[in-house]
Amino acid sequence: MSSPYKHAAIIGVGLLGASVGLGLKKHGLAKRVTGIGRRQESLDIARKRGAVDDADVDIGAIEGADLVVIATPAARVTHDMDQVHGLCGDKAVITDVASTKAAICAHAAARWPPPRRFVGSHPMAGSEKHGPEHAREDFYRGSVCLMEPLTDQIDPEAHAAVCALWEALGAEVAYIAPRHHDQILARTSHLPHVVASALAINVLHSPGIEKLVGNGFRDTTRIADSRPEIWRDICLTNRDALIEAIEDFRGVLDAFEESLKSHNETSVEGLFDEGRRARREVLGE
Amino acid sequence: MSSPYKHAAIIGVGLLGASVGLGLKKHGLAKRVTGIGRRQESLDIARKRGAVDDADVDIGAIEGADLVVIATPAARVTHDMDQVHGLCGDKAVITDVASTKAAICAHAAARWPPPRRFVGSHPMAGSEKHGPEHAREDFYRGSVCLMEPLTDQIDPEAHAAVCALWEALGAEVAYIAPRHHDQILARTSHLPHVVASALAINVLHSPGIEKLVGNGFRDTTRIADSRPEIWRDICLTNRDALIEAIEDFRGVLDAFEESLKSHNETSVEGLFDEGRRARREVLGE
Repeated sequence: MSSPYKHAAIIGVGLLGASVGLGLKKHGLAKRVTGIGRRQESLDIARKRGAVDDADVDIGAIEGADLVVIATPAARVTHDMDQVHGLCGDKAVITDVASTKAAICAHAAARWPPPRRFVGSHPMAGSEKHGPEHAREDFYRGSVCLMEPLTDQIDPEAHAAVCALWEALGAEVAYIAPRHHDQILARTSHLPHVVASALAINVLHSPGIEKLVGNGFRDTTRIADSRPEIWRDICLTNRDALIEAIEDFRGVLDAFEESLKSHNETSVEGLFDEGRRARREVLGE
Repeated sequence: MSSPYKHAAIIGVGLLGASVGLGLKKHGLAKRVTGIGRRQESLDIARKRGAVDDADVDIGAIEGADLVVIATPAARVTHDMDQVHGLCGDKAVITDVASTKAAICAHAAARWPPPRRFVGSHPMAGSEKHGPEHAREDFYRGSVCLMEPLTDQIDPEAHAAVCALWEALGAEVAYIAPRHHDQILARTSHLPHVVASALAINVLHSPGIEKLVGNGFRDTTRIADSRPEIWRDICLTNRDALIEAIEDFRGVLDAFEESLKSHNETSVEGLFDEGRRARREVLGE
């Protein structure tokens, strides 16, 4: 980045927000970082850890910020965006970190006249841990950050600044249109969360489960240990694409069941083979 | 074990069978180990690695063995059992390593008059690797081996011998009735394999997938990289329990979809919460 921000604001000082703050301070990208949160305890931790210089439960403290990172849960982002709109002038660069993008970017387009300086981001750095106590300055290093591509609705300087921010934090930036982003992520992330939870629920209803679970179950359901309220928001803000993904998934499940019912060895093996090839292709293995 | 076997036979010298062989030799449990397989190449590897003393494609070579471990794919075990029945006398201790148990143990009960000396086993030591080249003498160490419990249909001495065998190889033995075993494993293992494959297939049908998959997808679908022919056999030999598990799973999936369609925040969060609690309870975390 050519020059640091004078006053960066981070709304939401959880794992993602506080890690942005630590990165900003570490790389000298912002002279002052203000953290906004709803829980005083999280704000205190973020401040003590050096992720923010000052912290407030009142969003009014971000007034005049020239960089705003909205790091609240997916369902909360549009609300925070409305508040930022009233507090920061036309020069602030604004982004978010939510896992869904279509509704958020559409809201930004409706909120600001073009060219807008809000540019949606989805850094794909995850963890089952949460809270500012687990934040790290290198949290985003080596991850991929998905950003909406530059269009004539977006200010090119703000777009470049958001891209430079993620690159400075160590992420590789990739561009994908918000609606396409949500359709793909519904299948690669949101549906797997639903399925992992459904598998775990389905097992609990069996008696005498002790010692009968192996690594397959452990891995397949690992993401079922994520925070319910976070995944509620992600799934509900990407409802249409997720419902479509569930319906397609059910079609494949039906094909498995039909092959089992008809004892069709070729078909059962063919489905497992297709699954193996699909995974290897998707992961580039 | 009080005294070693004079002549142990292992039918199927893949990862599981060859690891039994290495363990038998390492712990001095058998004076001679004969390996039977369909592929000369695998037999050569097993012999060179010291998992077996001699190897043959002709099952006739096991004649007179006092310990027989059937380590062929689940759908093949009953066929091999019939051949063992014709070749080994009444004194041989016989077991298997297949992931499904009800059909196999029922076949044994029909094949031998009580008390039978075949005792079904399912060592839950897995790996995406396969073949005798990956076999290890400590492959079973620290794993759980599920065995059918002693009943009046089973010879107590043979039952104790099979239990001692697995314990000598480092496994912890747990007892579970074959039908119950299959019902539980349908949910903890077989359904997760079906679901992991279905998730991978469902993703492949999305365009522009590069860079859009994270660790959630990687973990949830890891077991989709297993061998299709092995899982075809496991699923088809546990067809009824697996179909029931799929149907119950579909019920949970439907509940998720219904909650999303009705935008019921409480219900979506409740399902994710139930999934998290279920997983923690099942894994004892």
